[in-house]
Amino acid sequence: MKTLIVYAHPEPTSLNATLKELAVTTLEGAGHEVRVSDLYAMGWKAVVEAADYGPHASSPLKVARDSGRAFDAGALTPDVRAEQEKLLWADTIIFQFPLWWYSMPAILKGWVDRVFTFHFAYGVGEHSDTKYGERFGEGTLAGRRALLSVTAGGPQSHYSSRGINGPIEDLLFPIHHGILYYPGIEVLPPFVLYGTDRMTDQDYPEVAKAWEHRLLSLATTEPIAFRRQNFGDYEIPSLRLKEGLEPAGRTGFGLHVRG
Amino acid sequence: MKTLIVYAHPEPTSLNATLKELAVTTLEGAGHEVRVSDLYAMGWKAVVEAADYGPHASSPLKVARDSGRAFDAGALTPDVRAEQEKLLWADTIIFQFPLWWYSMPAILKGWVDRVFTFHFAYGVGEHSDTKYGERFGEGTLAGRRALLSVTAGGPQSHYSSRGINGPIEDLLFPIHHGILYYPGIEVLPPFVLYGTDRMTDQDYPEVAKAWEHRLLSLATTEPIAFRRQNFGDYEIPSLRLKEGLEPAGRTGFGLHVRG
Repeated sequence: MKTLIVYAHPEPTSLNATLKELAVTTLEGAGHEVRVSDLYAMGWKAVVEAADYGPHASSPLKVARDSGRAFDAGALTPDVRAEQEKLLWADTIIFQFPLWWYSMPAILKGWVDRVFTFHFAYGVGEHSDTKYGERFGEGTLAGRRALLSVTAGGPQSHYSSRGINGPIEDLLFPIHHGILYYPGIEVLPPFVLYGTDRMTDQDYPEVAKAWEHRLLSLATTEPIAFRRQNFGDYEIPSLRLKEGLEPAGRTGFGLHVRG
Repeated sequence: MKTLIVYAHPEPTSLNATLKELAVTTLEGAGHEVRVSDLYAMGWKAVVEAADYGPHASSPLKVARDSGRAFDAGALTPDVRAEQEKLLWADTIIFQFPLWWYSMPAILKGWVDRVFTFHFAYGVGEHSDTKYGERFGEGTLAGRRALLSVTAGGPQSHYSSRGINGPIEDLLFPIHHGILYYPGIEVLPPFVLYGTDRMTDQDYPEVAKAWEHRLLSLATTEPIAFRRQNFGDYEIPSLRLKEGLEPAGRTGFGLHVRG
């Protein structure tokens, strides 16, 4: 495997840092190639702005169109081009981050906002009245697999099906489906550590063992069975799921998972 | 009303900018006080780092604890203190932003990550085996109301109950419930414009009319009926919703809305 680890935590001795390092040593120890994008160490610029598109930034700025023109011309800034190249190099992508306010830290959202440009991650393929692009199962990053490795301060019950925060699979759906599956990446079930606010050194060996197990079984883990956009499950052009495809009683985000 | 508008778009002539300006003139015209946090114009720093907490940043950095110590000491950076003061001043908060990758632009997520510190927005009230803080209906920002005004490139059907993106109310739940309701803010139904990728100048008068209507009826709009954490609906300490409270067949995020 060729694994890219995108890592976002400001403290180099944090649990997130430790899990990132364990991923590197475990995967390299098993003979895989690993590259790391340590966003804090890189001083990653989180904010989309006209300067990202050089001479292709129009006035007024049009983020989608201008990012696509800069991408087409190979004129995106070097930091963004390097990340796009790493994504194309990788067959597996691990995102290591703490859940802050039920989502990614801003530095990681800014990695998505800047790296996932028009014509690279969206605006790919025919857009017409009969087709709305190659996405959700197709796209530039098809053939790759991704895994979120996430730490959550609160206990697991708060993220359970009836938990006050909402189910973890629904909280992560906008990332799993909206960000990763959109440009074609298959998404593996996440590795989530709960209760990390109260975790002690005594808890770490068990955590490390569970993480190593997930890392060493990446190649054989079944991805989440998201429905593909362009293979008959959705009405065109509304992109509403056709009636009757889902198990009785299923609603919401779960509709977009098969079976 | 005292309204804070938190606005996040890099282009000063964008639709988002126009909607922000219309909110200012409409509310001021109706005799209300308005303040604007224009995150791009302010050069808002999106990324949480040790420097945010000055002498209260420990080594190793502990984001929650250190942000709380800096907050308690009045030692947060001036940019963050100013935003906290605006939130305390306001009775109404409008967030104006484009939906990028099904969530906020990174600059706005970084506003949340940095401004919503420990002891200000979380870690408020007793945390014990019988109570897990004052949150979800209580907290520092109780008594305030918020509204998301969001532009989405894709058509409305893609965000409908069976739409491929998932229902808009579920996509926004981590913001509505996880970010705004958590520190006590009541959340009004969002103002969402769809299909903005294909919107023309001819479409704008109708949009403006709908937005003005929402703005002038803010005070009488019913908030989303999220369930309060500490008033009997949840098991303690699991914070699972008690059985039987929801309408038959309701699951997922919808469980946390009454009725």
